[in-house]
Amino acid sequence: MEIKVIRKILEAGSKVAETNRKILKEKGIISFNFIGAPGSGKTSLLLRIIEALSDKYKIGVIEGDLATTKDAELIHETGVPVVQINTDGGCHLDANLVGKALEELPLDRIDVLIIENVGNLVCPTAFDLGEDYKVGVLSVPEGDDKPEKYPVIVKVSKAIVLNKIDMLPYFRFDKEKFYQPIKRISPNTPVFEVSCETKEGISSFVNWMISKINQKGGEGK
Amino acid sequence: MEIKVIRKILEAGSKVAETNRKILKEKGIISFNFIGAPGSGKTSLLLRIIEALSDKYKIGVIEGDLATTKDAELIHETGVPVVQINTDGGCHLDANLVGKALEELPLDRIDVLIIENVGNLVCPTAFDLGEDYKVGVLSVPEGDDKPEKYPVIVKVSKAIVLNKIDMLPYFRFDKEKFYQPIKRISPNTPVFEVSCETKEGISSFVNWMISKINQKGGEGK
Repeated sequence: MEIKVIRKILEAGSKVAETNRKILKEKGIISFNFIGAPGSGKTSLLLRIIEALSDKYKIGVIEGDLATTKDAELIHETGVPVVQINTDGGCHLDANLVGKALEELPLDRIDVLIIENVGNLVCPTAFDLGEDYKVGVLSVPEGDDKPEKYPVIVKVSKAIVLNKIDMLPYFRFDKEKFYQPIKRISPNTPVFEVSCETKEGISSFVNWMISKINQKGGEGK
Repeated sequence: MEIKVIRKILEAGSKVAETNRKILKEKGIISFNFIGAPGSGKTSLLLRIIEALSDKYKIGVIEGDLATTKDAELIHETGVPVVQINTDGGCHLDANLVGKALEELPLDRIDVLIIENVGNLVCPTAFDLGEDYKVGVLSVPEGDDKPEKYPVIVKVSKAIVLNKIDMLPYFRFDKEKFYQPIKRISPNTPVFEVSCETKEGISSFVNWMISKINQKGGEGK
């Protein structure tokens, strides 16, 4: 019975997701949905991406948060158009919320849309927002066992970012253990080891994003 | 309409939570529900608590996880009775699942029940499992902004643990910023700064647990 209810909500969301997808396609916008636990470094990664991409592409951001506008304020300072979605305690973004956020963004002046989901490694994986690519953001301090313990994020992500690699010397982190379940579940999913602090590895991940943008025919506006 | 559905589930869960609470009370068991993000160190904290408490009290553990039995195996090695709940992707434990786990535990030989919730700082805060105390587990690498960005965990927790304080030298972490929203939202909630790695601060937190155990009249079996 409970499962039925959840399915109903997911189905309703799925129709709105298709509408979002259609709008984004019509506007020639490539979209990424960043999913990760609280503190995995999603906002820091966004700031690095904006730094690296904004001379080539016009970026727009949707920030998902439970309560504050802190992250959106950081993005706003870069000059990039940003809309904050406050879920008021809700554990994930859904297609309806994103649809409303799209209405607030200057879509004609955006090539690349980045959605930062609510800090949560579980629930956001289940929801189609209409985005092109889900990206899983993990980090060294969370531990090398996360891909095994949270296989769904591995399954749904088109790329995985392992953030805070500058912290590797201070944590017991077995890379072999980290990579093994990813290779099993999603052998073709690229993993990018980065540090938003030192910028190590950022350009490789940004190049992956660019390849996806070009693949979809995004040529810049 | 969606809200109605969620309420219904919460209400149904709430009745089962009362049943769990009654069973635990009849057996004279004091219970703690540990909630934190993936990688905040809930399992490490449990291992330290077992180390510190198991000469005084008989401990039982319920482990919540999406998929694996890794954490339960670690607990099992200590000799403490443990039941694993695999939510199969579900983002939180509910009272039904905990009720089923209680049936599997030797309740007559348990004084203190510790429930480790699924790694998620959001959803588990909304569910009454029938436990006596919710404990929020945060950690230094997650960042000093987490109490502000996730106010619900602050609101529902009877104690907050700030784990991985041995990592303070390596992260920009403003304690003032961390404490400020806690003092605003829950001025009487104690915060324990601990390191499961160096054991710093563990005894203070364990003493808080003991005070709660004694307060409820738990005298050991």
